Amino acid sequence: MRNLTLTALEGMPEVAPGDDLARLVCRALAATGIVLAPGDVLAVAQKVVSKAEGCLVELASVSPTARAHDLGRITGKDPRYVQVVLDQSREVLRAVPGVLVVEDLRGFVTANAGIDQSNVPGTDRVLLLPPDADASARRLRQAIAALTGVTVGVLVNDSFGRAWRNGVVGTALGVSGFEALVDLRGQADREGRTLRISQVALADELAAAASIVMGQGAEGTPVVHVRGLPAQAAVGVAEDSSVRDLLRARAGDLFR
Amino acid sequence: MRNLTLTALEGMPEVAPGDDLARLVCRALAATGIVLAPGDVLAVAQKVVSKAEGCLVELASVSPTARAHDLGRITGKDPRYVQVVLDQSREVLRAVPGVLVVEDLRGFVTANAGIDQSNVPGTDRVLLLPPDADASARRLRQAIAALTGVTVGVLVNDSFGRAWRNGVVGTALGVSGFEALVDLRGQADREGRTLRISQVALADELAAAASIVMGQGAEGTPVVHVRGLPAQAAVGVAEDSSVRDLLRARAGDLFR
Repeated sequence: MRNLTLTALEGMPEVAPGDDLARLVCRALAATGIVLAPGDVLAVAQKVVSKAEGCLVELASVSPTARAHDLGRITGKDPRYVQVVLDQSREVLRAVPGVLVVEDLRGFVTANAGIDQSNVPGTDRVLLLPPDADASARRLRQAIAALTGVTVGVLVNDSFGRAWRNGVVGTALGVSGFEALVDLRGQADREGRTLRISQVALADELAAAASIVMGQGAEGTPVVHVRGLPAQAAVGVAEDSSVRDLLRARAGDLFR
Repeated sequence: MRNLTLTALEGMPEVAPGDDLARLVCRALAATGIVLAPGDVLAVAQKVVSKAEGCLVELASVSPTARAHDLGRITGKDPRYVQVVLDQSREVLRAVPGVLVVEDLRGFVTANAGIDQSNVPGTDRVLLLPPDADASARRLRQAIAALTGVTVGVLVNDSFGRAWRNGVVGTALGVSGFEALVDLRGQADREGRTLRISQVALADELAAAASIVMGQGAEGTPVVHVRGLPAQAAVGVAEDSSVRDLLRARAGDLFR
C-alpha cells in the first residue's frame, strides 16, 4: 500500500530566541512516539524557526521613512510595520487598501514580506522570515542527524496567498535533503507519450500538506513528521536542493 | 496522535467515457483493503473524471479561427488545440512563446484552460476539464454513499502552475461534502491575539497533498483516500461547499 502519513508532533513548547530547535524537535518526536527512519521528512513552521533564530523587530525601534508613511496611508497599515516590510523587500509589486505585495529579499513574492504579528508574544513585535530558510533547514537536518543518527529531509513552510485564488496555502520557504522541484521532463505517461507536465513543485505540495496538519491557530503543533514521500523526492540523497529552484526567474514572470 | 494519512488506491483501470466511476472507486477501495469511515475524503484526479464524463475533443474536428491561428503562431501551439482552449475560455490573460494563460469558463486562471494531451489514449484527442467539477464531486459522493452507506467528502484535483513559482501543484477543481475555504476570522492565536491569516484554502492544500501520492506519470493511481482532516473541514457536514469559494473575484484580482 502506497501511503503518505503526516503526524503533528506533540509537546513542542513556545520557542524563544536561542532555543535549540533540533533538541526540542527530538523531544517532541519522543513524546509523540515516533522513531525517525531514513526517507522521513520533518516540516517545521516558519514561526518557530524565526523565533529560534531571533528574527524579531520591535516596532518602537523603527523610524518610518516618507515612503513608508505613504504606503501606510494607501494600505491602512502601521507605517512602522510598512517600514519593516520595505526593509525586507526588493520591490513593491502592489499596494492597495489592506494589501501590500512585495518581492522580498529572498525572492519570495508575498504579502507583507511574510512578516507577521500573530502568535508573537509581546504586543509590539513582528516576526521576520528567516534570512535563509534553506540554511535553517540544513542546520536543523544536520543537528537532528547528530542527535538521532538518522538523516531526514527538512522543510520550512509558511502560508502564502496566491494571485488568483482566495485563501492561503502552505508554501515552502526552505528545504534540505530532498528535491524541491521534481523534474519529470522526458518521462513517458501511461500511453508512452511524453508528459506535458514536466516539473512538479514537490516542496510546495508538501508544505501545503503539512499546513493542514499544523493548523493556523491555537493548535500549537508547528512540527509535522512526514513518512512515505515518493522516490523522486530523493529524501536523504538530494544534498544541494534549494527553495530557489521554486522561484520563477524575473524574465519568465508574466504577472509582475 | 493527530494524523493525516493519504493512500493511493490500487487497481483503478483505464477509465473510458460512460464508466461508472463510483463503482470503480469502490472496487479499488476493496482491492486496497480500505473500508470507508465518516470523515474520510476521496481525492480523484481530473483526468479520470473528465474521461468518465467523455470530455474529449477530436482535434481533427476543429476548425481554427484567425485568432486561434494568431495565438498559435505566438505560442508555438497547434491552432486547433488553441481553438479548443479559446472555446473553453472567457479571456486570454497572457500569450507568449510556449505559454497561453487564460481564465476558463469556470473561472479558473490556468495554462491552456487545463486542457491536456498526456495520458489520453489516441494521438489526436484532447481532454477538457469537467464542465462543473463541484457537480462531478457531488454525484460521485452520492453514488459512493449509495454503494457503501458512508458519506465521504470528494475532491476533484488537477495540477496548475502559479504566477511566481516554478512547477505545478495539485489544485482543487471541485469539492463536495467538505469546506473548500476554511474561515478562521475572529479566532484567537496562542497569545489571544486575533489571527492575521484568516482564510485557508483547505481544498487546495488537500489537492496538493493528494497530488504527491497520485504522481504525475506512469503510476496510474488517480484516486487517493484521505483520512484525518481536521474538524474545520466539516467533512460530511458541509453540504453547499464549492470550489467557487476559492476563486478570487475579479475586483480583488491585482495581477490580471
